[in-house]
Amino acid sequence: MNTFGRNFRCTTFGESHGLAVGVIVDGCPPNIPLTEVDIQPYLDRRRPGKSPLESGRQEPDRVEILSGVFEGRTTGAPIALVVRNRDVRSEDYDALRDVFRPGHADYTWQAKYGLRDHRGGGRSSGRETLARVAAGAVAMRCLAPYGIAIRGRIIEVHAATDPAAMEAEIRAARDAGDSVGGIVEVTAAGCPAGLGDPVFGKLDAAIAGAMMGIGAVKGVELGEGFGAARLFGSEMNDPITGTGFASNHAGGVLGGISTGQDIVVRLAVKPTPSIRRVQQTVDTAGKEREISVEGRHDPCIAPRVVPVAECMMALVIIDAMLEQAKYRVFAGE
Amino acid sequence: MNTFGRNFRCTTFGESHGLAVGVIVDGCPPNIPLTEVDIQPYLDRRRPGKSPLESGRQEPDRVEILSGVFEGRTTGAPIALVVRNRDVRSEDYDALRDVFRPGHADYTWQAKYGLRDHRGGGRSSGRETLARVAAGAVAMRCLAPYGIAIRGRIIEVHAATDPAAMEAEIRAARDAGDSVGGIVEVTAAGCPAGLGDPVFGKLDAAIAGAMMGIGAVKGVELGEGFGAARLFGSEMNDPITGTGFASNHAGGVLGGISTGQDIVVRLAVKPTPSIRRVQQTVDTAGKEREISVEGRHDPCIAPRVVPVAECMMALVIIDAMLEQAKYRVFAGE
Amino acid sequence: MNTFGRNFRCTTFGESHGLAVGVIVDGCPPNIPLTEVDIQPYLDRRRPGKSPLESGRQEPDRVEILSGVFEGRTTGAPIALVVRNRDVRSEDYDALRDVFRPGHADYTWQAKYGLRDHRGGGRSSGRETLARVAAGAVAMRCLAPYGIAIRGRIIEVHAATDPAAMEAEIRAARDAGDSVGGIVEVTAAGCPAGLGDPVFGKLDAAIAGAMMGIGAVKGVELGEGFGAARLFGSEMNDPITGTGFASNHAGGVLGGISTGQDIVVRLAVKPTPSIRRVQQTVDTAGKEREISVEGRHDPCIAPRVVPVAECMMALVIIDAMLEQAKYRVFAGE
Amino acid sequence: MNTFGRNFRCTTFGESHGLAVGVIVDGCPPNIPLTEVDIQPYLDRRRPGKSPLESGRQEPDRVEILSGVFEGRTTGAPIALVVRNRDVRSEDYDALRDVFRPGHADYTWQAKYGLRDHRGGGRSSGRETLARVAAGAVAMRCLAPYGIAIRGRIIEVHAATDPAAMEAEIRAARDAGDSVGGIVEVTAAGCPAGLGDPVFGKLDAAIAGAMMGIGAVKGVELGEGFGAARLFGSEMNDPITGTGFASNHAGGVLGGISTGQDIVVRLAVKPTPSIRRVQQTVDTAGKEREISVEGRHDPCIAPRVVPVAECMMALVIIDAMLEQAKYRVFAGE
Repeated sequence: MNTFGRNFRCTTFGESHGLAVGVIVDGCPPNIPLTEVDIQPYLDRRRPGKSPLESGRQEPDRVEILSGVFEGRTTGAPIALVVRNRDVRSEDYDALRDVFRPGHADYTWQAKYGLRDHRGGGRSSGRETLARVAAGAVAMRCLAPYGIAIRGRIIEVHAATDPAAMEAEIRAARDAGDSVGGIVEVTAAGCPAGLGDPVFGKLDAAIAGAMMGIGAVKGVELGEGFGAARLFGSEMNDPITGTGFASNHAGGVLGGISTGQDIVVRLAVKPTPSIRRVQQTVDTAGKEREISVEGRHDPCIAPRVVPVAECMMALVIIDAMLEQAKYRVFAGE
Repeated sequence: MNTFGRNFRCTTFGESHGLAVGVIVDGCPPNIPLTEVDIQPYLDRRRPGKSPLESGRQEPDRVEILSGVFEGRTTGAPIALVVRNRDVRSEDYDALRDVFRPGHADYTWQAKYGLRDHRGGGRSSGRETLARVAAGAVAMRCLAPYGIAIRGRIIEVHAATDPAAMEAEIRAARDAGDSVGGIVEVTAAGCPAGLGDPVFGKLDAAIAGAMMGIGAVKGVELGEGFGAARLFGSEMNDPITGTGFASNHAGGVLGGISTGQDIVVRLAVKPTPSIRRVQQTVDTAGKEREISVEGRHDPCIAPRVVPVAECMMALVIIDAMLEQAKYRVFAGE
Repeated sequence: MNTFGRNFRCTTFGESHGLAVGVIVDGCPPNIPLTEVDIQPYLDRRRPGKSPLESGRQEPDRVEILSGVFEGRTTGAPIALVVRNRDVRSEDYDALRDVFRPGHADYTWQAKYGLRDHRGGGRSSGRETLARVAAGAVAMRCLAPYGIAIRGRIIEVHAATDPAAMEAEIRAARDAGDSVGGIVEVTAAGCPAGLGDPVFGKLDAAIAGAMMGIGAVKGVELGEGFGAARLFGSEMNDPITGTGFASNHAGGVLGGISTGQDIVVRLAVKPTPSIRRVQQTVDTAGKEREISVEGRHDPCIAPRVVPVAECMMALVIIDAMLEQAKYRVFAGE
Repeated sequence: MNTFGRNFRCTTFGESHGLAVGVIVDGCPPNIPLTEVDIQPYLDRRRPGKSPLESGRQEPDRVEILSGVFEGRTTGAPIALVVRNRDVRSEDYDALRDVFRPGHADYTWQAKYGLRDHRGGGRSSGRETLARVAAGAVAMRCLAPYGIAIRGRIIEVHAATDPAAMEAEIRAARDAGDSVGGIVEVTAAGCPAGLGDPVFGKLDAAIAGAMMGIGAVKGVELGEGFGAARLFGSEMNDPITGTGFASNHAGGVLGGISTGQDIVVRLAVKPTPSIRRVQQTVDTAGKEREISVEGRHDPCIAPRVVPVAECMMALVIIDAMLEQAKYRVFAGE
């Protein structure tokens, strides 16, 4: 399943070392101003090779709009966005053709499909998120007139919470041939109340699914999150006053529907599984092997999760807004 | 959206104080032995009124199979399961007709739909989970021959982890007219490797969406979960040996696909929002009010989340197994 | 797959000789006035036993709304509609347990599922359409304020086009222990222009799928339909004038999108496959058998297809209107 | 909605005079041999400019596989197929920017979206079917090992049924600046019994929706089709013998499920709406205008519908086979 969303449907394609990565956005409202210039900055933020703490892969990641836009505006037709892969060094992965990297999808993809594109993780590579970011940029463009602002940031790396300390943790891990995990927080401000459906279309459930679907994410929480397990009801409930909610322990969602407050979500990001340190594994024949994953890898993937998580949030919100629009018309508005 | 699943599709209906609660299970394989006797025990586990620490609502919760079963076996036709509501005391809620209970979906439902069934939370009541449990019981019946076992338990209540201490926390909260949160852990043992799709059909994403969609759940994590943010890659990665994985920090899922190990998920459950302690709120006219929620409520909802979470896990797994079945046939098996 | 529609989703259940037949309507807009009184007349029109030319099965077909309506208005929650089966004479079908009736789904259901509920066709019975009519009645209630009127009628029976001649054809077939086919025409007046999506969500494609999905329907056409194959472009194209289209050869749909004119569709209905005349068949063991289908059957099913086809049209239109509503909001309306 | 299929999902994109037309095939089984060589012949059959009776647009229509194939085999990842547009003469359409061509989607697209890409019909152009054919070619590749053969042909043009007479009709229409309609028949041989779902997933309903979704198609029928309305039940029912069905009036589908016989479907194709003969219309300001559609158009579109209809049939069948596969595994096969 490579499609996300019910109303604003994004279908992504492409492998790390294939010809291209891209996405079809189907269900985008018509008459939205859109050019490559609206999308490129999001791809640039996600792009590797911007700092010594990131993967050294050099990709220009230039997006091309193949369809769905006419004279600078969306037409209602599906929008195809494609980025060609350039800096492909598939030979880096020749040694990995028959061996499963621990912590990656290598073993499970093989178990599922019986064959795999081993080059850079193939379809399971983080490079696929480029397509999500491109689609998210279109969503952001749709949301902009509504004053909805989505911002992500790293709030913790390997238990450090101060920016300088976080960077030090990443450097230390890199120098040790290792990697570290972190926590990302994303906030969506300006959302109207009423987004999300009860029961199986809950906004927080959609967010949780979207975020857990980002590679390396192992946990998702809204508002007080896991901390809610240690609170009394009288502490957790947000009082309501004549001017709105007096607090936001809920993280902007009650009963699966947005309250109109900030939507606040946190993601636990595991350490990058590709490390130089020697690990134990097996090859496709089941023979035990030792592996040291060379190549160009981020020692902490959390920074690069930030723009992806923001874009997934945008996709969830635009989808819920389109869903909600259906009700409004029949209500006589 | 009241349907869960792509292959094993469950559509639930019913309100807390309406005539009935039920579910249509569409996509259940044919020729599975099934009678009410297979389903009732799951409903009995979920049923309120079994202990002084639970809501006192007395519901027999007798399920009736209206369709889809012939001579004790499923036929491939949709299975309709219905439970009539009996112990409805809607008058308990008369005082709440025009007031929004903090921590509940009252405010957001009104914002979304412009009207609501205020009796016992209506569609947003925890009573709706009865339908999920009934569907989950059918899923469990399908999974049984495969040796897949799903077990949930409470591992923490208000920071207490010892059963006696957890019970004491619940009693103390109840006596104070308050409520407490907790953490539930669900484990699925015996799942084959290969379940789940890369990218947008990831097994862990489906689990996260399913679990966050249970009322009162504010966080979901797999394996090391949020703890992964504090680990090195060399600690987090599970080594692979000739006899399988040497550890299970991943919680049974890599790259969104099951590894064949136990799938381990934890849910943060917030304190029950219905409390006797006085809270500040507003009515539907926007006037400030004080509220003390009377009625029959669980001081800690975590115990009753356990069977619901187990059933949602069963629904995710059966859905993934049916999805995976499609590949196997074309692969020549 | 027992769900119809993307936005106004109807999931039906129930077998001819099971306990009940029903439907869950999910996605109905909130605040629509609705009671059983709005639905019952549609079921009464579809009900058998109203004339000597119809099946003699005596069913009151009383519908019960189990959920989704509060104080006479829809709430946005799923609407469960259930009709209990009463006049079940399953013993009529004992002789058919192991034999495949020609022209029915008996053989194919067995081939697909490996077992079947043989009583009255089970899930494949025309009785299932009762659930579609109940859902269609809800759709009709939603469409009423928009001035959309849907009307069906029989325009041909066994080549006869005059009402008296059509009735004579039906009587003659009945007396001969045989059955006859016919053609039904359904017109939807008052639909706005703009319904339906290009490419795979075309309004005429949705109508064709909906109509061909009614049992016994073997052909569907819009506007000139098959006659279009014998026209010149200059005859088929509808000229456009300052006051609208000058003709309606298209049948109200161009490029899959409604024009605002009447939507006109015709269905070819095959003769009822259940006939007293002796036919050749086989039993489940593959042994050749002769069969004469006794029981209570309509000698021409076309009259009873009329209300079902009207309701399917209503379901297609409400679904397209909800889809279209999404665009309008973002267009700044 | 630009996605077709539930299991073998094809999402198409692209406009007639945009940069490219293409499709993402998601859900293709892994390990299927596939290269551009498997797809190109289907595109070549559909390609315009092969005879004087077809549009003169000269497009090489070279397909490029961007993803989903590794070392000549499908991997289970989405397959992106893209064809760049070359012979674009958008200036041919400048005169049509503000005028609605009769019989086309111009008026309805504008009514729906409020703006449109007028060049060559934009998204509503027949050129979009190129993407369906590319996807259909992948489906054909999957079906090949099963011995399923799908063949289409023209059986009537403007009432003529003899090939020479049909060609004469097309020439005569072309010379008169007009166009003619026709009837296409598609047969799928070798399908197993058991494909298709009862009620809303019927194989014939899926075929009807797929075929009516091809531009210019105004009618669809299976087996006896509209002729069934003039038969007795004793004529229409196909007797079953020890060696199979004795006839195929049903057209290979009973109760929405395939019988194992040939699936036979016929499509009514309207005359090409683009004609040189002067027609009455209006412009976007509502002013009455006369129009003569110049450019490169087929005087009869039926021949070019043939490969598209074949490919849509292939897409319906592969989708049903994947659906059916789910049941087989749980049935213990």
